[in-house]
Amino acid sequence: ISPNLVFCHVPGRLSLLSSTSKYKVSVGEVERRLSSPECLNASLLGGVLRRAKSKNGGKSLREKLEKYGLRLPAGRRKAASVTLLTSLVEGEASHLARDFDYVSKTEFPVKRLAQYTKRQHTNDKQALAAKVEASLKLVKEFQDLILCGPPGMSYEWEPGVDKDVFNGLRHFALVTHGFGTPTIVTAINVFHRYLEELLQSQDSKENDGGQMGNGKCSS
Amino acid sequence: ISPNLVFCHVPGRLSLLSSTSKYKVSVGEVERRLSSPECLNASLLGGVLRRAKSKNGGKSLREKLEKYGLRLPAGRRKAASVTLLTSLVEGEASHLARDFDYVSKTEFPVKRLAQYTKRQHTNDKQALAAKVEASLKLVKEFQDLILCGPPGMSYEWEPGVDKDVFNGLRHFALVTHGFGTPTIVTAINVFHRYLEELLQSQDSKENDGGQMGNGKCSS
Repeated sequence: ISPNLVFCHVPGRLSLLSSTSKYKVSVGEVERRLSSPECLNASLLGGVLRRAKSKNGGKSLREKLEKYGLRLPAGRRKAASVTLLTSLVEGEASHLARDFDYVSKTEFPVKRLAQYTKRQHTNDKQALAAKVEASLKLVKEFQDLILCGPPGMSYEWEPGVDKDVFNGLRHFALVTHGFGTPTIVTAINVFHRYLEELLQSQDSKENDGGQMGNGKCSS
Repeated sequence: ISPNLVFCHVPGRLSLLSSTSKYKVSVGEVERRLSSPECLNASLLGGVLRRAKSKNGGKSLREKLEKYGLRLPAGRRKAASVTLLTSLVEGEASHLARDFDYVSKTEFPVKRLAQYTKRQHTNDKQALAAKVEASLKLVKEFQDLILCGPPGMSYEWEPGVDKDVFNGLRHFALVTHGFGTPTIVTAINVFHRYLEELLQSQDSKENDGGQMGNGKCSS
């Protein structure tokens, strides 16, 4: 059975607007959640998939899983700690990461922080610039490296990527349902933009006050 | 009315275990959500507070708000874009950030990434070390700066913090309900640990494979 086949649809947990559609959960995703490192049991998987609590010990869930070639032993002990991330299906985790990326790009005060830092280094501008250039190189190298694995790339290793790096990133993606790496990327991008602002002229009159509006709500 | 007074309790949206308690929502938080930059309207605020949809155009919500000295004009246009972050109350946003921090500390493959990078720089170890030292300084300066505002600090400015920096961080905290800054800090800490690993001896046999287990689920 193809891992891309849709196992079920799940309503979002974080949707406020009624127009938000459900998230598709693929057979591949269910297989990932049942496997290491999470090893979800029937009760938790049922919760993730928003199924009503069953009175038959997860029998109907197991029956559906079997139809798709998936096994879930009864009485299984879950492996990973349950956190708030556990409840997210990959579709919603990805959506949350995208929204956080959007908000960080538009609302994080990169210019203000950089202007403050530049003022602290008025007497050693060149030393600061040298440190910034060095950091930009390391940041880029780190960014390129973390994009070598899922969820941006396949969950299956392909030649061209260091296996240890891939497996480490794959593990982090599995434990965070795809939320982790894009979120780390978002924050590293914020730091990257801050570094680039540090290289801008001290006299820049621009600031990101504009994004903050006038502090009032319109009627 | 004190902003610390509890306005209501709200069940978590991301809780899987039935033992998870509700989150307290303070009068101060409701006031923040009703003010700029979010300017929530009655419909969205009701959704955030998990109130049943009212048939009276938000009248009961307005009445409760008035009891606590809060005003919500009818027909108000919301200001900020609705994202998946919008639905989180500050208590749950903070809980999610803490869980993400825990998972990033324990499951992100810092050592593997650092070992790969060190192998790429076998011929310029000293140059790499110099770049790392420079980056560590800038990372620390950035970290110290972003911890100058909420949610770690009060939402009210206090002397000792640059006002522009504070207001910028306050804006980001308001738009992300306290989720944003701790999450940026988490990711910057990951990068910081990666940088420190780059300074460790090339011959280190340690790796973070242990955290990944043996790939099997126990019965």
